[in-house]
Amino acid sequence: MEQTKFILAEKDMPTRWYNILPDLPEPLPPVLHPGTGKPIGPQDMAPLFPMEIIMQEFSPLNYVDIPEEVQAVYRVWRPTVLYRARRLEKALDTPARIFYKYEGTSPAGSHKPNTAIAQAYYNKKAGIKRLTTETGAGQWGSALALGCMYFGLELKVYMVKVSYHQKPYRRMMMETWGAKCVPSPSPDTRSGQAVLATDPESPGSLGIAISEAIEDAVTSKDTKYSIGSVANHVLLHQTVIGQEAMKQMEMAGFYPDIIVGCIGGGSNFAGMFLPFVKDKVQGKRPNLRIICVEPSSCPSLTKGIYCYDFGDTAGLTPLFKMHTLGHTFMPPPVHAGGLRYHGMAPIICHLYRLGFVEARAVPQVATFEAGVTFARTEGFVSAPETNHAIRVTIDEALKCRETGEAKTILLAHSGHGHFDMAAYDQYLTGKLSDYEYPEEKVREALAHLPKVPA
Amino acid sequence: MEQTKFILAEKDMPTRWYNILPDLPEPLPPVLHPGTGKPIGPQDMAPLFPMEIIMQEFSPLNYVDIPEEVQAVYRVWRPTVLYRARRLEKALDTPARIFYKYEGTSPAGSHKPNTAIAQAYYNKKAGIKRLTTETGAGQWGSALALGCMYFGLELKVYMVKVSYHQKPYRRMMMETWGAKCVPSPSPDTRSGQAVLATDPESPGSLGIAISEAIEDAVTSKDTKYSIGSVANHVLLHQTVIGQEAMKQMEMAGFYPDIIVGCIGGGSNFAGMFLPFVKDKVQGKRPNLRIICVEPSSCPSLTKGIYCYDFGDTAGLTPLFKMHTLGHTFMPPPVHAGGLRYHGMAPIICHLYRLGFVEARAVPQVATFEAGVTFARTEGFVSAPETNHAIRVTIDEALKCRETGEAKTILLAHSGHGHFDMAAYDQYLTGKLSDYEYPEEKVREALAHLPKVPA
Repeated sequence: MEQTKFILAEKDMPTRWYNILPDLPEPLPPVLHPGTGKPIGPQDMAPLFPMEIIMQEFSPLNYVDIPEEVQAVYRVWRPTVLYRARRLEKALDTPARIFYKYEGTSPAGSHKPNTAIAQAYYNKKAGIKRLTTETGAGQWGSALALGCMYFGLELKVYMVKVSYHQKPYRRMMMETWGAKCVPSPSPDTRSGQAVLATDPESPGSLGIAISEAIEDAVTSKDTKYSIGSVANHVLLHQTVIGQEAMKQMEMAGFYPDIIVGCIGGGSNFAGMFLPFVKDKVQGKRPNLRIICVEPSSCPSLTKGIYCYDFGDTAGLTPLFKMHTLGHTFMPPPVHAGGLRYHGMAPIICHLYRLGFVEARAVPQVATFEAGVTFARTEGFVSAPETNHAIRVTIDEALKCRETGEAKTILLAHSGHGHFDMAAYDQYLTGKLSDYEYPEEKVREALAHLPKVPA
Repeated sequence: MEQTKFILAEKDMPTRWYNILPDLPEPLPPVLHPGTGKPIGPQDMAPLFPMEIIMQEFSPLNYVDIPEEVQAVYRVWRPTVLYRARRLEKALDTPARIFYKYEGTSPAGSHKPNTAIAQAYYNKKAGIKRLTTETGAGQWGSALALGCMYFGLELKVYMVKVSYHQKPYRRMMMETWGAKCVPSPSPDTRSGQAVLATDPESPGSLGIAISEAIEDAVTSKDTKYSIGSVANHVLLHQTVIGQEAMKQMEMAGFYPDIIVGCIGGGSNFAGMFLPFVKDKVQGKRPNLRIICVEPSSCPSLTKGIYCYDFGDTAGLTPLFKMHTLGHTFMPPPVHAGGLRYHGMAPIICHLYRLGFVEARAVPQVATFEAGVTFARTEGFVSAPETNHAIRVTIDEALKCRETGEAKTILLAHSGHGHFDMAAYDQYLTGKLSDYEYPEEKVREALAHLPKVPA
């Protein structure tokens, strides 16, 4: 019997998160205050986050202990399984070895609870009663609803309007766990009202939803804000994925030649590759390739500019040095709602500029073709976001067929597509289309980049 | 740390299915030919099933080896996890110990693939090219679509019309795996045409859909029929659940006082309890209680008659001795589509008559209340069918709170509710209602029971 599943014992689940910051060959550019242009400090973030999370954002330590209360919830579904995709390999007739780490077994169906649980825990510990957040396709919102349920916090989720209507089941899931969810732009905040005044039919964007959630948090009692991606502490929490995968790849007897994942804000894939990229940064694995996959209609890394920009649309956040399409850019309504973000995690952008990771943009229809191939071989129906990574995994495996190389490919499988079946239906009935790269809209948005005070 | 998850190694996955037939204290009443009134033999079933499956239907052996090809697919998600529901226990403030065996991690999201994989395998082995089947809520149809994908068979699914419209995502899932799915009653068969002629707006029923699938199978080339519940061989295949659970309860150090599960055709719950009921039949566990939970609007065990009836609506099947509401009974459109069946697995009915299992009927709204309690404690959002079992689990745990008894309750958790969120939405917004027990309609249907030829 050929082994296809690599399972860690609970006792081998990581007890610490891995922090890349002290291992970076050059320090991460500082986050700047938009008013002063000076680096922000922990106190500047205090209106948004509890201090333990803020400390993680700037932590100089290589590892941060995972509290036992968080581990206890992780154990509901962790450690997750690493699969060898033997059926996919066979269908592609490739000598490549394809592995995938499957995060779809969490109650929320994706990797997002890895940080949602931690954030809910730290807020609860700090005496916070209520959280606010934004969500795209709803994976983050439902994950935080789950986290808040476990720790007894109220939650209000601002969900990007196009996804709110495309994916009502995710909203219902949040409500089942006790959260409140409204479409964004909403009339509940001044940021939302401003967008609606200009465009009542606005499909929304993650940037707008972030503005609304932040405004709600800073203007409400006992309330903090929670972010599902981009920030250093979110990437930190996700490193349970990569640390587990590293042990599991050892069990399988292979070290990856290529690691592939999709990037929206970047947390899922960074959670996978950060423990591995350390080997590359330290020169132990110079040939390791790490491929970040983004939608060709919202290509922050491959087409964005590396500069300081706001994380949200209204300009309520500090300024982050990142690849951005401009904080006012409104991405086309692709089904991969989690990848519709104008910016990218600063850590990923930094590593990209330093040459440690590469990026590739893929069009929507090709990603669903890949997702159906995956479903028809491996069985699991994947999220539209994940299908982007599957596309490139298949492409790399097909290259191996041409060259005859038996490369080892590790795919970060971020979650299932049970709430995205309508998109599969569109693909299967030929109704799904690609969106052109919206060059003109990006140029317009880039003309509105914030000026950094000298 | 208190253990909440009991995990079997792959090597401890059962390699044999457990067959209750030779262990029954009295033999199961024979299946009769509707024309002759004589017991049917293997050859009578040959138009529907491949011979290896037919042999399992009548097997005198205690165990049937699970083919390695089937085990290889089982291993995609098996062994499944047994959980101790500590958060639910705490919320209920009960001394009861609640365990649940969670089948929701299969790619199709329920227990159904346990038999779908086996049936697809045996048909493929017998040279069959195409299968037909019926499905209620779509869990069985999607599971068989998955099974047929793994073994390269075509599939046509007749889906009960009310569910086809209520749960379009399950249809899309079947199509993603390559199956064809039509609403039943359909114009594609004479059975479907006959129903549509009487009632063009018929919501359909499992009985009608079975008629259509059987008719298609016996009139098409290289085609056989596949059934998702009721039949002996289906219950047999599901015993991987109970065998695993038995080992896991040993790991946990407890033997159940009460086992609870929902019953539509009965295969999921029988798969759980058959390995345990053996202990009761043999006098080793006289106090073990096994509670079968059904909807009060479709209560085959608690209100049905124990007699010979057809398995389908059109009368194409042989006659089964079972508790039935009458094969022409049309159940109300409750969300638990998998429980909308007029009959019940003969093995379960037999054990019920012999006093080894008991039955309880519960109304719809109370089941969703229980499902929301479960989601808000354990995290997992459960299928409407499963919520029936959760309702009784909670009720029994609350009784323990009153009496102070620390009973051990084992819940057969058949799958997730990701495709049933609209039902949760109805419940949460107060729009869900109960259906009265349709006494008059049952009386009518029972007046049309088939006469058994002398």
